[in-house]
Amino acid sequence: MEPVMNITKITKPHDRLAKYVAADMEAVNLLIRDRMASKYAPRIPEVTRHLIDAGGKRLRPMLTLASAHICGYEGPYHVHLAATVEFIHTATLLHDDVVDESAQRRGRPTANLLWDNKSSVLVGDYLFSRSFQLMTETGSMDVLRILSDASATIAEGEVLQMTAAQDLATDEDIYLQVVRGKTAALFSAATKVGGVIAGADVSTVQALSDYGDSLGISFQVVDDLLDYDGQSSITGKNIGDDFRERKLTLPVIKAVANADSKEQAFWSRTIEKGSQEDGDLERAISLLQKHGALEATRLDAISWANKAKAALAPLPDHDIKSILYDLATYVVARLK
Amino acid sequence: MEPVMNITKITKPHDRLAKYVAADMEAVNLLIRDRMASKYAPRIPEVTRHLIDAGGKRLRPMLTLASAHICGYEGPYHVHLAATVEFIHTATLLHDDVVDESAQRRGRPTANLLWDNKSSVLVGDYLFSRSFQLMTETGSMDVLRILSDASATIAEGEVLQMTAAQDLATDEDIYLQVVRGKTAALFSAATKVGGVIAGADVSTVQALSDYGDSLGISFQVVDDLLDYDGQSSITGKNIGDDFRERKLTLPVIKAVANADSKEQAFWSRTIEKGSQEDGDLERAISLLQKHGALEATRLDAISWANKAKAALAPLPDHDIKSILYDLATYVVARLK
Repeated sequence: MEPVMNITKITKPHDRLAKYVAADMEAVNLLIRDRMASKYAPRIPEVTRHLIDAGGKRLRPMLTLASAHICGYEGPYHVHLAATVEFIHTATLLHDDVVDESAQRRGRPTANLLWDNKSSVLVGDYLFSRSFQLMTETGSMDVLRILSDASATIAEGEVLQMTAAQDLATDEDIYLQVVRGKTAALFSAATKVGGVIAGADVSTVQALSDYGDSLGISFQVVDDLLDYDGQSSITGKNIGDDFRERKLTLPVIKAVANADSKEQAFWSRTIEKGSQEDGDLERAISLLQKHGALEATRLDAISWANKAKAALAPLPDHDIKSILYDLATYVVARLK
Repeated sequence: MEPVMNITKITKPHDRLAKYVAADMEAVNLLIRDRMASKYAPRIPEVTRHLIDAGGKRLRPMLTLASAHICGYEGPYHVHLAATVEFIHTATLLHDDVVDESAQRRGRPTANLLWDNKSSVLVGDYLFSRSFQLMTETGSMDVLRILSDASATIAEGEVLQMTAAQDLATDEDIYLQVVRGKTAALFSAATKVGGVIAGADVSTVQALSDYGDSLGISFQVVDDLLDYDGQSSITGKNIGDDFRERKLTLPVIKAVANADSKEQAFWSRTIEKGSQEDGDLERAISLLQKHGALEATRLDAISWANKAKAALAPLPDHDIKSILYDLATYVVARLK
């Protein structure tokens, strides 16, 4: 790893992280390209390439590489694990877009729209299998345990979201479980396996795992808040998407908890029954404001970001440690 | 394992096998029930139970148990592996029914019909993750390698089938690859991991793997043949389902290879373009007969069954060995 002289000139912590692990990420991208191939079924790399080349932020694999570096790892297998994490992430995106019947992802038509649901389901399965093949190459049973646990939590969280998202009885505990499945489980596994492959001690591995968990939750809470309180020009998303898709997220859960019977009827009609009319989104936002739900959600996001930072304390001093710290700051800096 | 006195009185080899591994299968069923639970998402056991309780033949997990026994295994982990194999099988069935838009499975409405495609996709993902968790409990990296390889072959075969099934250029090589994915890969992995967990030597493991591969192929070729040449009263399937679903299976591939231009046009219209009319199935069957495609397919099925039997040669003498032998005979005995 070459020393990066101008790392402090780059402001966004994500870009600093990318710069730091650039050489490794090249190896990860090569490995991904190699393993998404199929001797018999060209549809597989076609679909995979569509998603991979759309250029996600690659935050998860970078977190794996970063965690391995911070623990002084010098072997080759953090690259396998980073590719594994990206494959699992890609597989879940393919399946999510089928489940949500989405038409757009990363500014491009989804694979289920360009090809069909079948391709998305089966190519997702293929990538998931490939990710486990990659893991076996590391020879670490701990890594397999961590990532198969994470995969089960992801699938469980998705099923839970499907059944709970339109149910007003869904409380903050269930929301947290959904968020762990949707986002935090893979963040946490990504950082954890970086430490495990480096042979780090138990408390270091726990610190990395906790950091990923809290960062992932903060990330998702911010996302859910911006859906009601963001500027489209910054987020690239439309205000009210979750409301229109009848997804019960944290701001609404907080408002429902304080709703009088008339408000309860409003949420029941718009979210549970899905009967929405002009002006409903504005009414929803005004109810969120009335009950301080947006502000309370903002404080939750900040609290999770602070937990992420606190989790870093036991880690050794390292350039990457400060980048990870700044990353947690940055996640909530989008909120004003 | 209690000695089974009346094992020869039971004629069907599948029933003899079931009787032999009955105690283990009880443990497998308990483990399946335990691991299909979900703390948060009751939809998961609901969907899984619907499929598991429909009572498939459980042939794959029984093959794993049998293979472990034949190698003298006395540890507990063949039970985990048998449950793993059944979970992988169940996950692929859930996803297959989404991909094929099936309405019936094992004489009951499919999960995608009773619930929805989303539930089938996500519960399949959950079971797949659970299967990898189960494998890690065995502590055997070899087992993980074999079953993640098999999973990748399964998904690849399904993608290949999707793109190749309606393409008249599909030849017997591609068909074989599809069949390995659809059926033989999991049969072969099921027998192989039984040997591996027992610590059997390389040639024994290879023999078990070859047996599963050939048995699985024979099984699928018979299935594809009976679709044109079976009696509904025996197979429980309707003649011509594959034709109506425009699936290019071995009998048709053989007939297409010998088709004159008029016949070529017939296959192109009915299979590639999917424009079928009254009398087409009868014409298809008469073309299969004219070119000896049914007879040639029958001989292929028998040849694969014979390969399965031959593969057993290096295995130690054991009651189960003769059951496995008879199982290969039985698979093609449905053909007359």
